[in-house]
Amino acid sequence: MKKYFTIIITLSMVITASAQQSLFGGEQIVSPEIHANNSVTFKVNAPNAKEVKLAGEWMPSEGWTPGLASMQEDENGIWSFTTETLEPELYSYSFVIDGFKTTDPNNPFIVRDVASVMNIFIVGGQQADLYKVNNVPHGTVARRWYNSPSLDKTRRLTIYTPPGYENSSEKYPVLYLLHGAGGDEEAWITLGRTAQILDNLIAQGKAKPMIVVMPNGNVIQDAAPGEGTDGFYKPQFMVPKTMDGIYEASFPDIMKFVESNYRVKAEKASRAIAGLSMGGFHSLHISRYYPNTFDYVGLFSAAILPNQDVSHQVYQNIDGTLKAQLENGYQLYWIGMGKTDFLYDAGKQYREKLDSMEMKYTYRESEGGHIWRNWRVYLSEFVPLLFK
Amino acid sequence: MKKYFTIIITLSMVITASAQQSLFGGEQIVSPEIHANNSVTFKVNAPNAKEVKLAGEWMPSEGWTPGLASMQEDENGIWSFTTETLEPELYSYSFVIDGFKTTDPNNPFIVRDVASVMNIFIVGGQQADLYKVNNVPHGTVARRWYNSPSLDKTRRLTIYTPPGYENSSEKYPVLYLLHGAGGDEEAWITLGRTAQILDNLIAQGKAKPMIVVMPNGNVIQDAAPGEGTDGFYKPQFMVPKTMDGIYEASFPDIMKFVESNYRVKAEKASRAIAGLSMGGFHSLHISRYYPNTFDYVGLFSAAILPNQDVSHQVYQNIDGTLKAQLENGYQLYWIGMGKTDFLYDAGKQYREKLDSMEMKYTYRESEGGHIWRNWRVYLSEFVPLLFK
Repeated sequence: MKKYFTIIITLSMVITASAQQSLFGGEQIVSPEIHANNSVTFKVNAPNAKEVKLAGEWMPSEGWTPGLASMQEDENGIWSFTTETLEPELYSYSFVIDGFKTTDPNNPFIVRDVASVMNIFIVGGQQADLYKVNNVPHGTVARRWYNSPSLDKTRRLTIYTPPGYENSSEKYPVLYLLHGAGGDEEAWITLGRTAQILDNLIAQGKAKPMIVVMPNGNVIQDAAPGEGTDGFYKPQFMVPKTMDGIYEASFPDIMKFVESNYRVKAEKASRAIAGLSMGGFHSLHISRYYPNTFDYVGLFSAAILPNQDVSHQVYQNIDGTLKAQLENGYQLYWIGMGKTDFLYDAGKQYREKLDSMEMKYTYRESEGGHIWRNWRVYLSEFVPLLFK
Repeated sequence: MKKYFTIIITLSMVITASAQQSLFGGEQIVSPEIHANNSVTFKVNAPNAKEVKLAGEWMPSEGWTPGLASMQEDENGIWSFTTETLEPELYSYSFVIDGFKTTDPNNPFIVRDVASVMNIFIVGGQQADLYKVNNVPHGTVARRWYNSPSLDKTRRLTIYTPPGYENSSEKYPVLYLLHGAGGDEEAWITLGRTAQILDNLIAQGKAKPMIVVMPNGNVIQDAAPGEGTDGFYKPQFMVPKTMDGIYEASFPDIMKFVESNYRVKAEKASRAIAGLSMGGFHSLHISRYYPNTFDYVGLFSAAILPNQDVSHQVYQNIDGTLKAQLENGYQLYWIGMGKTDFLYDAGKQYREKLDSMEMKYTYRESEGGHIWRNWRVYLSEFVPLLFK
């Protein structure tokens, strides 16, 4: 039979690969290349460029403007730059070619943050090993749709179930983990490395096996941009109706879905809620508006109080509901904030308020500002404290 | 209380968004913009560029080299190009700025194909409406890890369960859907739009509710690049050990996992296997090597026969096992091929072989070549024929 069926497959594949390489150039390049000493070399093939810069989040920045490093061109038009030794971390970066911001064409690992995409890489070791897929049991990550009667929508969420969930009859505790402004149900699972952090902490015996629910906090969306019925559209940082009480009021729809579709311990002692920035705001207000529902609350770089012109009932009687939350009791009220966060002062005032109420909390102050690096750290410190 | 807690949140967010915009430029641009007549305008802010081209997969190409269109610069350094009316389809594209291939910084919707990333957009209507998230019940998409004793690995797969699966006691049929060379368990769910196609066909009553299992056919990987213990590395088109029999021989590990972890009808009449290119090759060989296992087989632009120097037992006695498959009976042996596919002749010879054996098949010939556009069409035509 072989004589009839010429074996052209392998050859064709080689031709294809070569053609694609010559077409767009640079495909033989490896970038980034992480060296043994944790310095990193970036390369890009841009022979027509006059100036190529590297924008990396590890470089000193001014406010929201990242630091830039000049890349050097070799005789073949390949620009490169090698960093000093980098600390273990998950980093994002971009190239700026003649003033045009672009992704690294040799690195397909890309994350979206609001409407921007950036390449990422991991320098391993220490904390950053929590962000890697290690040879440990892995949980399941599912995107599911649930009914939200309060919002009259079917909506999408991301849910992590821990290793062993499917082959057990055990009931699990639940962490509700909320994203910031401009984020959605994809934020924590991508930029936040939630599945990797949970897999690793559980494998190390540092965290209890738990379910992590990552809902979408933008009530006008049924799903993340590109994943819902609104199709592909440019994501916005300022999504309407995100901090006006509707989401907080509708939150029981999510809990009801989770508690009737998963084997969970449907009790206060087995519920945690945490979020970053706007998600910290949501966590603050949901946990006091339903003041006997969560034994664990995490505010990561939280936005604190609603705009004064927002009159939703969720934001009425804040003092009274906080007091009820205090009197009902809770196990942990955890606050994380970066020293240079633009929300630092608001957070400080809120802590003073809690102090004045004698409402106990755990406070973690970190270096840096309003950045994912901090939120991954906060998550990995918060999770081991839950459900003990 | 309000006087103590200044409401800086909204203001801060606006500042942040503005700073990010001014930093990298062009953030006010909408690209692509799909007009009412289905022409599409692309824009990019590149004031320092001498030449900007658009590479779109709808443009006439030469072999693997896509067509290019020259974009025009306005007085502000914004380059643009408007297409003619495009047929409904999911399209990919890139920009080429002074010879440098780049993604569109104003379109965060990006798919990876092997090591390349490309922007995508959908021109709706007709067939392309199957690729959209419509207002219909949605299935669940999960990434799960399973044990493969044959490969001595825990491996990752993508699994689609149909709407209603979780709230039913019904048992479902299963389609195993295999990717091509350079692909992995992410290929069908991203480029293939499998979840959208299934959701829509099921909602229209054209397909039976079914489970779709999208495993990883590269036996040296535990997961897609970036999703497994090998970390972030540059994906290759030619992954070793992909077409040498090991995967086919190990396939029962996947079936065993699915059939013991999901409510499925574990019977030949409720099993289908299909794949594109290398996945068609795998489907061909798995279905005849286990010749009484699948009632439905789909070969989409299939690579056909193994390299002559591959001696794995899976590829011994091909004629005998095909004959056994024929004699055991099956419901559907479906072959799809594009007229300009580089595998066209190999496919023709294989059909002649089936003819000579009087082994019935359904043949679908389409325009075009070895492209995702065809594979999405084949999937959407194949799925309605299953489990009737």
